[in-house]
Amino acid sequence: MTAAAGQSASRIEGFAAVVPAGGAGTRLWPLSRAGAPKFLHDLTGSGRSLLQATWDRLVPLAGEDRVLLVTGRSHAAAVRAALPGLRGENLLLEPSARDSMAAIGLAAAVLERREGPEAVLGSFAADHVITDDAAFGDAVRQAVATARTGEVVTIGITPTGPATQFGYVRGAEPLAVEGAPDAVRVAEFVEKPDAETAAAYLAGGQHRWNAGMFVVGAGVLLDHLAVQLPALAEGLRDIAASWDTPRREEVLDAVWPGLVKIAVDHAIAEPVAAAGGVAVVPGAFGWDDVGDWDSLATLLPGASDGLAVLGDPALVLGEDGASGVVVAGAGRTVAVLGLPDAVVVDTPDALLVTTRAHAQGVKQVVGAWRERGRDDLL
Amino acid sequence: MTAAAGQSASRIEGFAAVVPAGGAGTRLWPLSRAGAPKFLHDLTGSGRSLLQATWDRLVPLAGEDRVLLVTGRSHAAAVRAALPGLRGENLLLEPSARDSMAAIGLAAAVLERREGPEAVLGSFAADHVITDDAAFGDAVRQAVATARTGEVVTIGITPTGPATQFGYVRGAEPLAVEGAPDAVRVAEFVEKPDAETAAAYLAGGQHRWNAGMFVVGAGVLLDHLAVQLPALAEGLRDIAASWDTPRREEVLDAVWPGLVKIAVDHAIAEPVAAAGGVAVVPGAFGWDDVGDWDSLATLLPGASDGLAVLGDPALVLGEDGASGVVVAGAGRTVAVLGLPDAVVVDTPDALLVTTRAHAQGVKQVVGAWRERGRDDLL
Repeated sequence: MTAAAGQSASRIEGFAAVVPAGGAGTRLWPLSRAGAPKFLHDLTGSGRSLLQATWDRLVPLAGEDRVLLVTGRSHAAAVRAALPGLRGENLLLEPSARDSMAAIGLAAAVLERREGPEAVLGSFAADHVITDDAAFGDAVRQAVATARTGEVVTIGITPTGPATQFGYVRGAEPLAVEGAPDAVRVAEFVEKPDAETAAAYLAGGQHRWNAGMFVVGAGVLLDHLAVQLPALAEGLRDIAASWDTPRREEVLDAVWPGLVKIAVDHAIAEPVAAAGGVAVVPGAFGWDDVGDWDSLATLLPGASDGLAVLGDPALVLGEDGASGVVVAGAGRTVAVLGLPDAVVVDTPDALLVTTRAHAQGVKQVVGAWRERGRDDLL
Repeated sequence: MTAAAGQSASRIEGFAAVVPAGGAGTRLWPLSRAGAPKFLHDLTGSGRSLLQATWDRLVPLAGEDRVLLVTGRSHAAAVRAALPGLRGENLLLEPSARDSMAAIGLAAAVLERREGPEAVLGSFAADHVITDDAAFGDAVRQAVATARTGEVVTIGITPTGPATQFGYVRGAEPLAVEGAPDAVRVAEFVEKPDAETAAAYLAGGQHRWNAGMFVVGAGVLLDHLAVQLPALAEGLRDIAASWDTPRREEVLDAVWPGLVKIAVDHAIAEPVAAAGGVAVVPGAFGWDDVGDWDSLATLLPGASDGLAVLGDPALVLGEDGASGVVVAGAGRTVAVLGLPDAVVVDTPDALLVTTRAHAQGVKQVVGAWRERGRDDLL
């Protein structure tokens, strides 16, 4: 890794970053809402939203003019406000949500049209938390070097525990790519395991967390897609052909609604891996998809033996063994008395009180408010 | 009880009700505050504050012109607004809090001066919850009949369970007073018992809850006080002598600060009971002093197998086994997920999250905010 690490501060030539910013983050309700989804929130107390932190992490690697943002039309204003450095032509607005393959494929097709099929793109979700930018940059650098050999490359996170909430990618033999000493062949992608299996994965050392990060040549990606889902590939290339022309909206509105909804994992990663065309570069950095409030509690310091606070700590009081997470999001004081592993999320119009163990049930609360006709809260 | 019950709708001749309205109700924070104490809140969802419900209960027995309200000067405006029927001359404002003996003693002294020592007063806290007004009226009627024989009379609540949070009064032989068939001699007042003792009290049938309700002739009360605490009795009678004159404030400000702070139980009830001068009339009505959030949960229907709501039920959602109490006091929605025996008190500037088992610890929270200099919350 030393050779690559030495270049960590410089841009990666010919590399473009793609950031699909979607997903309501329902399990982080009531902070995350349809109108203000997870990626627009600062979930680490850093002062930057997850989207902004993603941007900050990618700009040194791709350059400010080579970060493409794919999001829904309804989020355009919020994204522009959050990222004043984002080029107007790099904000790709989807007329409707058609899952991650269409989002990333659109960016790949536009990039292929603008720069040719050799352009390498890396796709990174807008709402994950990553620590250690240097290690992240090194992994991306190795992944780009590997992608230039025609591989579809994923960055697999070195597990820090037997997690059951993530999918895994199993590595096989080394690939000996120049500039990517750590890249190995992917044997398979596997679904979220049970606890026993997860422990075996951790002990075995061959499995890494599938963080949904893909690095691949634009042409390679679209050619794979043309094999797996030809109509989708054709539709995306049709849209891209008109993208930087006056006909963009016309073609987009005609073609987009007919595109198949599918995740990039199912469309590309799994079938191509089965055919031996996917590589993995290990990522030795801190990573979390902040899937729910329990996950956030793990990220924030102090949650296990006291109250971790997102917001102004002066507003929060924990007494008599209170622990867990408080989101002080309404400017009001929050006192938690004698409740371990509490989750208290205070927003101006909705309050959630639960425990870390019930974090997955937040979807149920959202559903119940919907049933009561309170879509204004969602 | 039949003879007395027949008169339940009529006023009791020569009887005045005294309502000491004091106490911050700290354990009901953040609903109850120094500026808006417990008695000003509707804790039962009836639409009337505890003070108003107390007034509603006493007016049929004493008459609107014979209810005396003793409270701190700072609460004058709130009390006048809550009780438009209260006569101006019956609002007795204390310059400072000097405990219940001074408050009740002041009312007794003013009543003695206005009507003579034979006037009978009944003192009832402004912040208790009582159900079954007819049974309450019957008990007061019997207590007044007993008081006319020179007794200090308390109304002892027939226990509905082995409560450890209340003091008890132990009854002895019947007194055979005309119009008070249920009155018995008081053997002793006893402090809050442990669980085993409380169970024995319940089984024995002689112990009743001491609800702090005293019915006594004004002259009898002050004469007892003159024996126990002569300076206090003299001070109160001096203030009363000037009360309905232009010198009221002058004398009040000169004498009041020097009055001893003592509860009526310690000043009168216990020593006079020891000398055989106290009677008890059993009260077969529902009563609770709503001492903390756990106590409120017991009062409100639904708290044990779901969420009892104080406020608009449409604002509150309980999912996955949530039970306990939610006070929806800020107009926002409150969702509780998977938390049994929860206590969530939502107010515009302060939120409390705890469990029924920790209800007594709310004082600790109030103390902690005070230490942080947040007196604005208290």
